[in-house]
Parts: sequence; structure tokens; C-alpha cells
Amino acid sequence: MMSTAIFYHAGCPVCLGAEQMLANAIDSKKYTIENVHLGTHAKRIKEAEEAGVKSVPALVLDGEVFHINFGAAIADLKN
Amino acid sequence: MMSTAIFYHAGCPVCLGAEQMLANAIDSKKYTIENVHLGTHAKRIKEAEEAGVKSVPALVLDGEVFHINFGAAIADLKN
Repeated sequence: MMSTAIFYHAGCPVCLGAEQMLANAIDSKKYTIENVHLGTHAKRIKEAEEAGVKSVPALVLDGEVFHINFGAAIADLKN
Repeated sequence: MMSTAIFYHAGCPVCLGAEQMLANAIDSKKYTIENVHLGTHAKRIKEAEEAGVKSVPALVLDGEVFHINFGAAIADLKN
């Protein structure tokens, strides 16, 4: 049975590229990967909350929540 | 060329299983995956710091640092 990887985010423009890099690193042979933008798909917020998501970006692997702090260095914002 | 995924951790017994689940989810066809226990391999702390790792667990994908807050629910600690 395929495992499921759901990547919840909110479309942060600074972080999105890096976040997708993480999502793309997931093995698609093992995982069905879904990207959910909670800003534009607010009706899925409840599902995310019920899975235990406290902040975004978060990766949920078979129901296990990983909160990701990629963050953005202030220095990067100045570039 | 293979990409590199380095998973830095400190062997937290509560989180290790979940952290390895994340490391195992990385596509090994695309990434050379390395697990580094900084508690037992303290000489690699400098390398981790230079990569931008501020806390563990952290996943470094081709030099891009993702700090992961899996955390442990207090409720889980009581089990």
C-alpha cells in the first residue's frame, strides 16, 4: 500500500521553492505526495488541524506530523 | 549527479523513530542519504553549524537547511 505524504503550506513566496524542494525529495515510489496550500484551500484547515498540524509548512507522513522551520534569514530578505 | 541529504539529530529516544521515518522517505534514487548523530559524532558539529544548522533534528538537502520540529506531545511522554 502506498504511504501518503501531505505537505501543508501557505504559499510563502520566500520559502516556497525550498519547501517544494523538500516535498520533491520524498520518494514517489513509496509515497503518494500531495501539496496543500491552506491559504487558497482553507476548507482543508480542519483536516490539517485534526492531523496535528500546528504551523505551516508541515509535512504529514502517514499521519505523523513534522513541523518544518525553514525560515528565511533576514540577510536573504535583503538580497 | 546525486543530490545529498544529511539528517542531523542527537538521538532523542522519543523522536528517533519518527525522524528516521522522515529520512527514509527521501528518494534514495535522487539523494545520497546520511544520518549524523551529533551526540556521538561531535566532531561534525562544526560542519553542521557551517551548513546553517541551528537546532536538531535538521535535514540538509543540497546545502538547504530544514529545521524540523517534530516535538513530542507531553501526552506521548506520559504513555
